Amino acid sequence: MTNASPTTACVLIIGNEILSGKTQDKNLQFLGAELSRRGVRLEEARVLPDDKAEIIATLNACRAKYKYVITTGGIGPTHDDITAECVASAFKRDLILHDDAVELLRRSGRELNPARLKMAHVPKGSVLIDNPISNAPGFRIENVFVLAGIPSVARAMFSNFADQLGAGGSIYSRNVDVFLPEGDIAKPLGSIAAKHSDVEIGSYPFSRDSRYGANLVVRGPNESLVEEIFGLVITAMQDLGGEVHVGESSS
Amino acid sequence: MTNASPTTACVLIIGNEILSGKTQDKNLQFLGAELSRRGVRLEEARVLPDDKAEIIATLNACRAKYKYVITTGGIGPTHDDITAECVASAFKRDLILHDDAVELLRRSGRELNPARLKMAHVPKGSVLIDNPISNAPGFRIENVFVLAGIPSVARAMFSNFADQLGAGGSIYSRNVDVFLPEGDIAKPLGSIAAKHSDVEIGSYPFSRDSRYGANLVVRGPNESLVEEIFGLVITAMQDLGGEVHVGESSS
Repeated sequence: MTNASPTTACVLIIGNEILSGKTQDKNLQFLGAELSRRGVRLEEARVLPDDKAEIIATLNACRAKYKYVITTGGIGPTHDDITAECVASAFKRDLILHDDAVELLRRSGRELNPARLKMAHVPKGSVLIDNPISNAPGFRIENVFVLAGIPSVARAMFSNFADQLGAGGSIYSRNVDVFLPEGDIAKPLGSIAAKHSDVEIGSYPFSRDSRYGANLVVRGPNESLVEEIFGLVITAMQDLGGEVHVGESSS
Repeated sequence: MTNASPTTACVLIIGNEILSGKTQDKNLQFLGAELSRRGVRLEEARVLPDDKAEIIATLNACRAKYKYVITTGGIGPTHDDITAECVASAFKRDLILHDDAVELLRRSGRELNPARLKMAHVPKGSVLIDNPISNAPGFRIENVFVLAGIPSVARAMFSNFADQLGAGGSIYSRNVDVFLPEGDIAKPLGSIAAKHSDVEIGSYPFSRDSRYGANLVVRGPNESLVEEIFGLVITAMQDLGGEVHVGESSS
């Protein structure tokens, strides 16, 4: 929305444990922030159960729709780890034993029983993604990146290919805390947003020390335009008599 | 999967701030756990940007597929709060000013300007969901429940209708920490899972004080069956020489 043809991505979080509330997902926020820093627009995320038909159908819909798909979870040795076989099915490829993956697993020093060898099986044509933490690799096939669900491992894997996602520029972001209730700032903020659809303007209410306010965010690929609109927002808030605290800029 | 015709649900998390990594979602885990306690199976969650076409299309797909759809986010007074109008479009209903909602908003004591009155607009035929925290209500229309994104408000709103989700029984759950690497327990665990598809068996690896292990979870609607299979899991782990720490049971 801030760019005529942005580089897009989708994250698929795979695992019953996220849907049942057993586990708090910690990968989406990390991936969203890292993609944004690299100018990649995360347009959707889906949390899916350990269900083959659902995973295959979703993967096929999303890899056709978005430039990149990143999955997390379901690549361990147990029966409920079905991501690799689902990706193979989605791409209509065989699941093959990857020699380099066997070599990586051997480093753990543990017996390479059939369960552990399962983690060396990837769809034919995949490129491995190194896992410096627990050896069992992730993999990339075409525009799909398959990562572990454990946050430390997912982060380490992501860092191995993040620079390949080259999207032509960052997304710049400025933000300010305004100590006025959202209902009072909505009109002037909406007017600015209506005139400048080439940046994204978000309003996120907060209550802090019994005072109401909103964190206002201006984001877009054009740094000088973001700065200009951000200036308009600040001025509008000051005109309302609002106390403003400008946050750190980020890109 | 644990039940011939489970009561199903889907959660739609609406907001650019979740996808950009600005904000960590805290509603999904809460809703997943609360639905599970009530025997409702959360089968999918999606995180969507503030984009009308995407929200409308997703809402229509999901309300047809699942018994309940719960949305969070996008019901405030600012220009980026578009959930209510999207829900109205999805249902092909007019967005109308709801008198009771106006009355609720009046309680805040603040000026009822057009931005605040926006929060009193709901699709025609909606039933309001009370918001004891900041007054602006959520609403229900058919099988769709529309909640605020702020976690404290989302929780308060959910508690107002949670008992209506009656799903015919809870989902029971037992869990145990086993201090063996997942690669060593995968085979016996997989054998038990293959023979008992009427319960769900999950394995979630951990590393604690430099020791590897996995938290094994047995879940299902039939309590005595869950207990029976859980006993088989414990025995299998003890046969492998694993130290086991049984967790609290929950339903």
